Amino acid sequence: MSDMIKIAVDAMGGDNSPKKIIDGIIHNHQSNNNSFYKIFGDENKISEIIKGKIDNDYYEILHTENVVKSTDSPLEGAKRGKNTSMWLAIESVKNKEADIVVSAGNTGALLVVSKLNLKMIENIDKPALSALWPNKKGMSVVLDLGANIECSSKNLLDFSIMGASLYTSLYPDDKPNVGLLNIGSEELKGNEIIKETYQILNDRNSNNYDFAGYIEGNHLMDGDVNVIVSDGFTGNVALKTAEGTANFIASELKTAMTGTLIGKISSLLNISNLNKFKKRLDPRLYNGAIFIGLDSPVVKSHGGTDYIGFSNSLDVCHRIVKGNLIEKIKQNI
Amino acid sequence: MSDMIKIAVDAMGGDNSPKKIIDGIIHNHQSNNNSFYKIFGDENKISEIIKGKIDNDYYEILHTENVVKSTDSPLEGAKRGKNTSMWLAIESVKNKEADIVVSAGNTGALLVVSKLNLKMIENIDKPALSALWPNKKGMSVVLDLGANIECSSKNLLDFSIMGASLYTSLYPDDKPNVGLLNIGSEELKGNEIIKETYQILNDRNSNNYDFAGYIEGNHLMDGDVNVIVSDGFTGNVALKTAEGTANFIASELKTAMTGTLIGKISSLLNISNLNKFKKRLDPRLYNGAIFIGLDSPVVKSHGGTDYIGFSNSLDVCHRIVKGNLIEKIKQNI
Repeated sequence: MSDMIKIAVDAMGGDNSPKKIIDGIIHNHQSNNNSFYKIFGDENKISEIIKGKIDNDYYEILHTENVVKSTDSPLEGAKRGKNTSMWLAIESVKNKEADIVVSAGNTGALLVVSKLNLKMIENIDKPALSALWPNKKGMSVVLDLGANIECSSKNLLDFSIMGASLYTSLYPDDKPNVGLLNIGSEELKGNEIIKETYQILNDRNSNNYDFAGYIEGNHLMDGDVNVIVSDGFTGNVALKTAEGTANFIASELKTAMTGTLIGKISSLLNISNLNKFKKRLDPRLYNGAIFIGLDSPVVKSHGGTDYIGFSNSLDVCHRIVKGNLIEKIKQNI
Repeated sequence: MSDMIKIAVDAMGGDNSPKKIIDGIIHNHQSNNNSFYKIFGDENKISEIIKGKIDNDYYEILHTENVVKSTDSPLEGAKRGKNTSMWLAIESVKNKEADIVVSAGNTGALLVVSKLNLKMIENIDKPALSALWPNKKGMSVVLDLGANIECSSKNLLDFSIMGASLYTSLYPDDKPNVGLLNIGSEELKGNEIIKETYQILNDRNSNNYDFAGYIEGNHLMDGDVNVIVSDGFTGNVALKTAEGTANFIASELKTAMTGTLIGKISSLLNISNLNKFKKRLDPRLYNGAIFIGLDSPVVKSHGGTDYIGFSNSLDVCHRIVKGNLIEKIKQNI
C-alpha cells in the first residue's frame, strides 16, 4: 500500500461536519482504493461514523482539539493555531506525511494557514485559487478566483503557467490553450496590466500551452479555451455571477415548468431528461478549488456541499497528485 | 403633437439595418403614438420600408451620406464625422431638435461621438453605460458596463446617484437601494477604492436611494438590490458572463430535452410553459443600454438584436424622457 496517495483531510470544516466529510470519504473509497485518508478532527465523532465502513488499512484518525470557525476572519483562523484540524492537516503535508490536503472550512483562513506553513514554488510570486468550470465541450480551468485582488503582469503570467500545468495534470493528453479574461477581443482594450500580459504571453513560446489571446465573459463557457486567466477580483465576480445566473435560470425554469397541470405532467414525462440536465450542471461535480503556487497543492471544498461533493473534491486531490501537478509547474516556470 | 417625445434614431447601425430599425419603429408605433421619430440614414432605403406603414405626422427622414462601421475603432468612427447617421442623430439632440438619441451601431464610436457633442452634467466626472437586468423580483439597473475601465470612488458615487435616478425615472413609485459589486459582503474585503466608496455611500444620506452595502456576483439576480454599481471592467465581465452562462444553460437544456422521443413529445406538451420561460428571459426585452452623465441620455441598442429588440430600446427612450432622467440626476448630484 506504499504507492497509495495520502490525502490529509480536515474533517471539521464546512456545514454538517464531520458527518459529511466522513461520508464523503466512505463514498470516495467505494470507487477508488488507491487513496489513504489521514483524517484530522474529533476522534470520537469521526470513528463513530467511519468504523466498519472502511477497512482501517485505508485511513487513520489524528485527533485534534480545536476548530477554525467559518465566522473567523482569516487572521483569527490562523491564530487558533496548531491545535486546529485545519492547521495540523496542512502541517502533515509540510512534513511530507501526506501528498495533498483538503478542507471544506473557512477559505480565507485556509489560504493564510497554507501560506504560513508551505513554501512558495521558486519563481512564483503569488499563489492563486483555481477551479474547474463546465463548458459546452468539457471543462476548463479558471484562475485566480479571489486569492489576489490586485495582480501584476508577472502574476498573470505565473497563473497562465500554473493553470496550464493544472490542466495537463488533470487531462494528460491535451495541450491546453490559455485565454486572458478581458472586456473585448481587440488588442487595444483592457487596462495596462492586461495589455502588458498579452504582450508577454504572445512573445513567449511555451511547450506547455498555446496562447489564445483575450476571452470575453460571454465566451467563457463555449469550450474553445481551456485555461482562463484573470486577477482574483474579476475572476471571483465572474465565477459568482455565473453561479447566480444559473440559480436564477433554474428558479425561472421551475416556475415555468410547473405553472399548469399540463406543465406538471409533461415535466414528469420529461423527468429523466431534466435529471440528465441537472446532473450535467450539478455544482457538486465541480467541487474542489485548487490553491496552487505553494510547494504542495491545497484543495478547498465548498463549505456547503454534501458528501457527494466532498467525495468529488477527494477525486480532484487524487488526480492532481497522480498528474504530478507540482513537478509540472516547476518544469514550466 | 407638440407634446410628443422626439427620438433621434440612427437608422444605419447594427446588423441588417436600416430594415430592422425601421421595422422596429413601425412596431413601436403600434403600441405608442406619443413618440415622434427623427430618422437619420439613407433616405431611399428608409422611405421604401416605412412609407404607408406610419402616418408621416409621426416621423421625418433626414438623409445622411455616410455610416460608422461596426469594425471602426472608436476614433475612426468619430473621424468619419458629420456626414454619418450616428453623428447627425446625436447632433440633433445637442441642438434640442430631439429629446433623446438611440443607435444600434458601434458602441465605442457612439460613446466618443456623444462625448464630443454633448456636455457633461455639472459635477459628474465620467459618464457610465448602464443597463436593465432581470432578477427574481423584477428588474435592476447595473452600471458601469464598460465605458470606464478604471474608476475612482467619486466616479462610483456618481454612478450610484445616476443609477438611482435612472431607476426612479423608470419606476417612479419605488425608492431604490444601491449595492456595490464586490467579492465579499464583509466591510474589509475588496480593493481600496471600493472600501473608500463604501464609506462615502454609508456616511451620505440621500433622499434618492438607500445604501445596501456590498453585493456579490451570486446575488445580482436575487432582486434584493435595485441598482448595482461597479467599475466598467468588472461590470462588463459580469454582464457578459451572465450572458454566456445563460447561453450555455440554454444549449445544455435543449440537448437534454430533445435527447429521446419521450423527451421530444413531453417538451412539445410543455411548449407553452417553455415559451413563457423563454419570454421571461428573452434578451430583446432588456435591449437598450443607457449612456448617462451627459446632458442628454444616449441609448445603445444591441447591434445583433431584431426589430422587436430595437422597438424595446425605443420604449426605453420614451420612458426615460417621460421620467425626466436628466432633471432627476441634476437634482440629486
